[in-house]
Amino acid sequence: MASLREKIRIASGDGVADLLLKNGRVVDVFSGQIEKKDVAIFAGVIVGFGDYQAKKIVDVKGDFLCPGLIDGHVHVESSMVTIPEFARAILPNGTTSIVIDPHEIANVYGREGLRFMAESARGIPLNVFIMLPSCVPATDMETSGATLNASDLRPFFREPWAIGLAEMMNFPGVIFRDPEVLKKIEMAKGRPIDGHAPMLSGKGLYAYLTAGIRSDHECTTLKEAKEKLKNGMRIQVREGTTARNLRDLLPLVTTKNSRRIFFVTDDRHPRELLKEGHIDSMIRQAIRWGLDPILAIQMATLNAAEYFRLDGLGAIAPGFRADLVTFDHLGRFRVGKVFKDGILVAENGKMLVTSTPKRKGLRVGLRVRGSVRVRPLKKDAFLLRSNQPLAKVIQLIPNQIVTKRVTKKIILNEGVAYPNIKKDILKIVVVERHKATGNIGIGFVNGVGLKKGAIGSSVAHDSHNLVIVGTNDRDILKAVNAIQAMSGGLVVVLDGKVLSSLPLPIAGLMSESTVPQVYLQLEALHHAVRKLGCKIPDPFMAVSFLSLPVIPELKITDKGLVDVNQFKFVPLFGEE
Amino acid sequence: MASLREKIRIASGDGVADLLLKNGRVVDVFSGQIEKKDVAIFAGVIVGFGDYQAKKIVDVKGDFLCPGLIDGHVHVESSMVTIPEFARAILPNGTTSIVIDPHEIANVYGREGLRFMAESARGIPLNVFIMLPSCVPATDMETSGATLNASDLRPFFREPWAIGLAEMMNFPGVIFRDPEVLKKIEMAKGRPIDGHAPMLSGKGLYAYLTAGIRSDHECTTLKEAKEKLKNGMRIQVREGTTARNLRDLLPLVTTKNSRRIFFVTDDRHPRELLKEGHIDSMIRQAIRWGLDPILAIQMATLNAAEYFRLDGLGAIAPGFRADLVTFDHLGRFRVGKVFKDGILVAENGKMLVTSTPKRKGLRVGLRVRGSVRVRPLKKDAFLLRSNQPLAKVIQLIPNQIVTKRVTKKIILNEGVAYPNIKKDILKIVVVERHKATGNIGIGFVNGVGLKKGAIGSSVAHDSHNLVIVGTNDRDILKAVNAIQAMSGGLVVVLDGKVLSSLPLPIAGLMSESTVPQVYLQLEALHHAVRKLGCKIPDPFMAVSFLSLPVIPELKITDKGLVDVNQFKFVPLFGEE
Repeated sequence: MASLREKIRIASGDGVADLLLKNGRVVDVFSGQIEKKDVAIFAGVIVGFGDYQAKKIVDVKGDFLCPGLIDGHVHVESSMVTIPEFARAILPNGTTSIVIDPHEIANVYGREGLRFMAESARGIPLNVFIMLPSCVPATDMETSGATLNASDLRPFFREPWAIGLAEMMNFPGVIFRDPEVLKKIEMAKGRPIDGHAPMLSGKGLYAYLTAGIRSDHECTTLKEAKEKLKNGMRIQVREGTTARNLRDLLPLVTTKNSRRIFFVTDDRHPRELLKEGHIDSMIRQAIRWGLDPILAIQMATLNAAEYFRLDGLGAIAPGFRADLVTFDHLGRFRVGKVFKDGILVAENGKMLVTSTPKRKGLRVGLRVRGSVRVRPLKKDAFLLRSNQPLAKVIQLIPNQIVTKRVTKKIILNEGVAYPNIKKDILKIVVVERHKATGNIGIGFVNGVGLKKGAIGSSVAHDSHNLVIVGTNDRDILKAVNAIQAMSGGLVVVLDGKVLSSLPLPIAGLMSESTVPQVYLQLEALHHAVRKLGCKIPDPFMAVSFLSLPVIPELKITDKGLVDVNQFKFVPLFGEE
Repeated sequence: MASLREKIRIASGDGVADLLLKNGRVVDVFSGQIEKKDVAIFAGVIVGFGDYQAKKIVDVKGDFLCPGLIDGHVHVESSMVTIPEFARAILPNGTTSIVIDPHEIANVYGREGLRFMAESARGIPLNVFIMLPSCVPATDMETSGATLNASDLRPFFREPWAIGLAEMMNFPGVIFRDPEVLKKIEMAKGRPIDGHAPMLSGKGLYAYLTAGIRSDHECTTLKEAKEKLKNGMRIQVREGTTARNLRDLLPLVTTKNSRRIFFVTDDRHPRELLKEGHIDSMIRQAIRWGLDPILAIQMATLNAAEYFRLDGLGAIAPGFRADLVTFDHLGRFRVGKVFKDGILVAENGKMLVTSTPKRKGLRVGLRVRGSVRVRPLKKDAFLLRSNQPLAKVIQLIPNQIVTKRVTKKIILNEGVAYPNIKKDILKIVVVERHKATGNIGIGFVNGVGLKKGAIGSSVAHDSHNLVIVGTNDRDILKAVNAIQAMSGGLVVVLDGKVLSSLPLPIAGLMSESTVPQVYLQLEALHHAVRKLGCKIPDPFMAVSFLSLPVIPELKITDKGLVDVNQFKFVPLFGEE
């Protein structure tokens, strides 16, 4: 790597730069203007504008040049690929920096999971900054693979890649001053602490802010965003696969407040990464819906860099990293060339370099496979005995992760409770899979719509136990066994046979394949599920949230059925 | 101090706040709006808005409330008072935070001087953040009291009060990659590094920026500021006693770029602090000249806080420090009450609390007095022998710190050169006063206008040796001795007697008096100087810059006459 000395020398005009990008219309995010000028790059850094000698000249022929885009909050695990594969998917869209919260893998592998994510981000042409997960596990009503206490996190704050504390989902823990929560917050003092506080308002919000939490990506209404913004939070406008807040929040943005607003995806599945894009798609949408393109670009670059204090990122200026994107038209924002550290890494949607030079994470022997450890199950493991026909049933609400708690009559036969397939009351089981405790939660779910067979997943928020929804115990058991055999993954089972599957061997969360491959496998899975009668758009995602006991109303973990409104376990049978 | 736990508890509405400010119109610098609401304060921190129980209620009766003002770059020594006295002068003006560059005292006392400034800022109701001086001494063409090498600075970067590297005045050193300069810059990596690069442009500027320097307070024209801003510098708009750039730079500000611009005073003398005010005067002027008051307030608060990463400063929001200012009218910005950490410290221009609770700096035994050590002078110490009548003369330019180099005929008598009082060619001497080396620089100056006597000062940028301008050697010698007797200060001498003086016993730079007292003493000095025939507005300031060999064209140090354009010593006599 060239020294600072060398970079200054080239910048001063004494010597030859590596690259000169000629005839670009440079978007200046500082003053909000566009200027036609040539950009000189040396040793991965922008060193000046105008007339420089360079080893290589690239004429961008009047295209616009903007800084590489930044995703300010994303769980890479939700894309079911590794960081290098995620990079390969998003670099052609112009994203050159991501701020990740690896709390999914942390729930499985704890500190080892964090190290794996950090190591697997090394040497790839993407800046990956890690916010340390603040809430692992999400609750004590479930069995996770690992726990991250304040004392577990402390050493990570010394790592160069750890830039802050990730979304503090446990907002009641902040407001009611849970000592462990406050320890984590005090440890992160002086660094960004991300918020996650859906619908928090008034004094609850003030208490949360008093703790020093300064961002939020859970705003769904303009009113909520306005309250949070004026009270000092940066608003991370989210446009994920399911949670889509851009349209609702766009009216928030004015030239006076836009500096406090930036873009995040939170969770994007392979389909949306391929069909829509990444942060570029948010810029396009925002422009289409009337936002000044320069403000949109500022929100996708400088604003996130400033909040996270990413020195030398988010702008095209001397001393900044040469992460740049060309695009054709201010109103369209169609990404052409993507430069990372001054190297052309993608063009017209295609990667030009490999994103996986070194699989360091795997090399250094971090164990992130073989995470599925289930205590051997008896044939009648899922048998439900009851002497009364009323059960509390989890009712899905289409396209939402909240559920309803309803009471339904199920089928009783000689003291055994069965699913009522006609009425779409299916069995749901959550099998603990980290420590082979033998914990199994069993319940009923309405709204999945399977007429036969079963579907199962090792992606089950946030503890990622195995969650299976099925019409009969045999197929449910087969699903458990099939997932275990793959060391994690998604599976569709019928009559004791696997119809389709997606192995997710890394922590039971991530594939080793590319985003397009995972997308095709997911399509095949969905096709198979539809053959079983299920009509909901993304059944695996829907099911994966049924185990998250922080989202109302009724959820199920390996420890049992949880009434989230009361935040306690409730018996399956009976009305109360 | 109350714990975070306690603050969150009060914020949540459980318990009693310390103070409720009722009926304020709160300026929200995040969204650029104004909202009438009550502000709850506990343990020096804003904990919420609206309906809170509080031990004390202050009704601000519809006054506006804005965050405490921030001066983003100031040399306190220029006000010739200590930090506690400076605080006492500026708090009633609404300034609650200053970012200082203590490079004057550092030139006298080095690391001990830095520690003194840090210590004397402890326990006073003003936030004082220190940027570590980057250029001590300014050049090697003078003898300073101390040198701050990179290795001297290194330990200070661990101090909580040291937030970055102060103005890098040695821009040629950056551009031409002086190893010691680069060491300091690399040491400061990841923290703010302030610039000081008057008129630097194009590739020189790009080289300077490539080093990671991200601010500048030396812009004097709109064109210069525009270039620096678009290339990534924060523009520190300066309005000092002499350097006044607000009017020229104001047209720079737009809603799109204003976040990158903030206010600094750099150097303000007692007179201007008393007659005009401090950062509040910049807000008033900016509004008068047409700037949106909300933008002006943002520039005086949040923008500086963001650049310097002053967490919890610069806004009125939960979790932010309760540094607040009331004012009566958006168009006038006349400061009423000033709250520091939730305590009413000033009202209607008057301090209500003492600003000097503990003179810690002096207590801990830091030696910042007795700095004037001059080798005993012989009677003929200032005798100039010459065999030719042409001398290079420093010509003052009114109200500027640059000078002209002119060649003038002086009076020769039996091989001795004398001042030509009629033609206003006076003698100037610089006497080394730190190490008693006996170094004396002798030259001639035109433009001071003394008809008799002499004036002298231990404030002489940047090394702060003694500088005396006089009509005769006897009075010059008396001036030197008088300054030494005071351990530093300003003096007016006539016929071997001191007419007027201002002792500056702390490092020869600062008085122990208050700003109003120093102002009166300065007025008395100026009165005395005018009696000697001098008509220039601030002769001591003018003279104090004649020893600064980085400002063109001809200057004088204890080592001799310096042609700054050639950056070398030149003989006093002769045309070349």
